[in-house]
Amino acid sequence: LVRKEIIKLNTVDIAEFIEELQKDQAVILFRLLPKDMSVEVFSNLENDTQEAIIRAITDKEIANIVNDLYFDDMIDFIEEMPASIVKKILKHSKEDERKLINQFLNYPADSAGSLMTIEYVGLKKEMTLKQAMELIKRVGIDKETIYTCYVMDSNRKLEGIVSLRKLVISDENKTVEEIMVTNPIKVYTHDDQEEIAKVFKKYDFIALPVVDKEDRLTGIITIDDVVDVIEQENTEDFHKMAAMEPTEENYLDTSVFTLAKRRIMWLMILMVSAMFTGSIINNFQDVLEKVVILASFMPMLMGTGGNAGSQSSTLVIRGMALEQIELSDVFKVIGKELRVSMLVGSGLALLNFIRMYYLQSVDIKIATTVCLTLIVVVVIAKLVGGTLPILARSLKLDPAIMASPFITTIVDAVSLFVYFSMASYFLGIG
Amino acid sequence: LVRKEIIKLNTVDIAEFIEELQKDQAVILFRLLPKDMSVEVFSNLENDTQEAIIRAITDKEIANIVNDLYFDDMIDFIEEMPASIVKKILKHSKEDERKLINQFLNYPADSAGSLMTIEYVGLKKEMTLKQAMELIKRVGIDKETIYTCYVMDSNRKLEGIVSLRKLVISDENKTVEEIMVTNPIKVYTHDDQEEIAKVFKKYDFIALPVVDKEDRLTGIITIDDVVDVIEQENTEDFHKMAAMEPTEENYLDTSVFTLAKRRIMWLMILMVSAMFTGSIINNFQDVLEKVVILASFMPMLMGTGGNAGSQSSTLVIRGMALEQIELSDVFKVIGKELRVSMLVGSGLALLNFIRMYYLQSVDIKIATTVCLTLIVVVVIAKLVGGTLPILARSLKLDPAIMASPFITTIVDAVSLFVYFSMASYFLGIG
Ligand SMILES: [Mg+2]
Ligand SMILES: [Mg+2]
Ligand SMILES: [Mg+2]
Ligand SMILES: [Mg+2]
Ligand SMILES: [Mg+2]
Ligand SMILES: [Mg+2]
Ligand SMILES: [Mg+2]
Ligand SMILES: [Mg+2]
Ligand SMILES: [Mg+2]
Ligand SMILES: [Mg+2]
Ligand SMILES: [Mg+2]
Ligand SMILES: [Mg+2]
Ligand SMILES: [Mg+2]
Repeated sequence: LVRKEIIKLNTVDIAEFIEELQKDQAVILFRLLPKDMSVEVFSNLENDTQEAIIRAITDKEIANIVNDLYFDDMIDFIEEMPASIVKKILKHSKEDERKLINQFLNYPADSAGSLMTIEYVGLKKEMTLKQAMELIKRVGIDKETIYTCYVMDSNRKLEGIVSLRKLVISDENKTVEEIMVTNPIKVYTHDDQEEIAKVFKKYDFIALPVVDKEDRLTGIITIDDVVDVIEQENTEDFHKMAAMEPTEENYLDTSVFTLAKRRIMWLMILMVSAMFTGSIINNFQDVLEKVVILASFMPMLMGTGGNAGSQSSTLVIRGMALEQIELSDVFKVIGKELRVSMLVGSGLALLNFIRMYYLQSVDIKIATTVCLTLIVVVVIAKLVGGTLPILARSLKLDPAIMASPFITTIVDAVSLFVYFSMASYFLGIG
Repeated sequence: LVRKEIIKLNTVDIAEFIEELQKDQAVILFRLLPKDMSVEVFSNLENDTQEAIIRAITDKEIANIVNDLYFDDMIDFIEEMPASIVKKILKHSKEDERKLINQFLNYPADSAGSLMTIEYVGLKKEMTLKQAMELIKRVGIDKETIYTCYVMDSNRKLEGIVSLRKLVISDENKTVEEIMVTNPIKVYTHDDQEEIAKVFKKYDFIALPVVDKEDRLTGIITIDDVVDVIEQENTEDFHKMAAMEPTEENYLDTSVFTLAKRRIMWLMILMVSAMFTGSIINNFQDVLEKVVILASFMPMLMGTGGNAGSQSSTLVIRGMALEQIELSDVFKVIGKELRVSMLVGSGLALLNFIRMYYLQSVDIKIATTVCLTLIVVVVIAKLVGGTLPILARSLKLDPAIMASPFITTIVDAVSLFVYFSMASYFLGIG
């Protein structure tokens, strides 16, 4: 049967296969899975499929699934279910578990609390390694990871950690205390997920303990969930850098109205700012009226300025996200951008001059005006693009908003002002 | 002493501390480290510090460090060292190791081969779990991970994998064959690192076997290196999306000349394209000469069009990178962007009309021209932004190049063409 073929697959692939079926067939196939697989498959399904299954199965089956889900996956699942199903689930859980569920539901989104799970191996420092191994053999099957174990005192205060590797290779008559790492690196329940991801990246951990204000162990965070956080934070930056309110949702699953809402606010702000740029042109109307051909170089100047500025701001925003650039590096950034922009600006201006003067036979005064403007614009654009993200960080704003759309809008205004000022000077107008 | 304080720290923190010292002090402190720590610290140091240390220590010490480095870290280290040091290192390694080093140095950058290491635990399927555990106890200290073990036949062909968890919780009289996962998910030595990262993200692995064309195990890749790959691939996309040649190098460590080189090529291409936009303006010079005020709305129209298009292209590029959007979704994307852009465009046009007609008392014909143009521009921008990345993918190009700078340049030209065409029609010119 199909069942025989299916259970040879990885549970992630089974979930993927089930997602492609009609909901009623999905439920049928799901119920055919062996019990030990079904929970793993369930936690890899999407919310609407999970809901369809929960609605179709018996209360006893629900209780089984909910009990066997890792706590972090259960919380994520409960958060997404409608109230009626949540009630059904909570009905089946014991008083103290219900309390714990409520506590976990209350951790802020994007905090360590919302990422952690409670299925870890807890040891006592007096145990011998032999005793510790026996404990792990007994409880290991239900834990999210057994590769790092946590040593606590009687008040659940975290005293140290022991890796399973160290446990396996050490003499079994030693005590846990002798081999544990004291003062392990840890995070607090309310720490932001972005900071947690940085800790994982820096130390190459596969799991990290989470403690409360009294240093009591409240849970652990595992690398697989942190990998998702990293992608989520990157997506957030991509979206912000394109002037959108960020979202975790899949593009194809998001409604048109929601998509429009996330985009229109920034477009309006930037549009109104761009009108200010228009008023600069109005102020130089006399210049433009006398030399209409000046208008035809506006897109090139504004475009190049915007692109040059976006390059710098992107490098600096990304550098700050990876902690390669800090607030105190602002002068280094200015120095670098100044030199880079003079090089790049001159190169572009040269190419442009050749094209305008020699190929298109544009008047030399106009060609000079355009090319000098180009250098100034590139320099200003790169300085603005390089420094605004750092300024944002120093004002405790997210540097990611100082990206292309914002920089471009500023640079557009600056470019035109420089352009027309130079033009009136060189062409002797106004 | 300082040594006593230092060795309490995590090796990553020690490396960070050493990086902040002068090179000669760094070498002194490094030599004070206990031997088991020094290798771990060494692999976390930057290349110039590694080089300084190698130049200062004896050949015997060099041999010790090189022998104890994980193979992947050693290869990365050798790749960065000058030829004289590489020679010194190779002199100390045995014939077969030298062969292996050369093989690894030849794997293409960004391939599985360049990420993998050879320190894994290999098991035979006939072993009992008790024998397997004894083997792990003996060799475990030198392995990059012992948490997944690899079962091979006598030709090193990969037959299955066993997690240490399963090994620990199962009855020790069972054989490896009874508990191993057959047909494990694996990658090939020449697979691209981006694809490998996707496998890790999908299946939540902490290690993955790498095989050659004959299915023989050549190494393993661990999650910590994949996390770095994920950030590297994201950085690559950020850079490409801002029209730069991507780089792995730290911004502050990159020379001005290199920075300029990476930026100028795309700026030139985009600048030359923008000149084409200028020629559109030239074609409509008569319109502009008659109604110079039209020029003052150009930045707003071009800016808003560019921003609207960038939003769409960013969403689609990111959606494709996360495998949420595929080639076959192109019509869904078009449908969505069409509806979103009409909503967003109308909203912006309305706001604009109120401002222009009621607040600034602009002539109603001009206000109508600008606002209708705005709607058309937003719709076109979002369609272009949404579809070009998909088109790029279908042409086997990286969708990331179809980002803001490129979209903006196209949309600038389209905006102005629509604008002046509408203006000549509504204002009865030309
Ligand atoms: Mg959660
Ligand atoms: Mg790392
Ligand atoms: Mg987890
Ligand atoms: Mg998980
Ligand atoms: Mg965040
Ligand atoms: Mg962020
Ligand atoms: Mg490598
Ligand atoms: Mg995952
Ligand atoms: Mg590795
Ligand atoms: Mg490594
Ligand atoms: Mg790549
Ligand atoms: Mg890529
Ligand atoms: Mg622009």
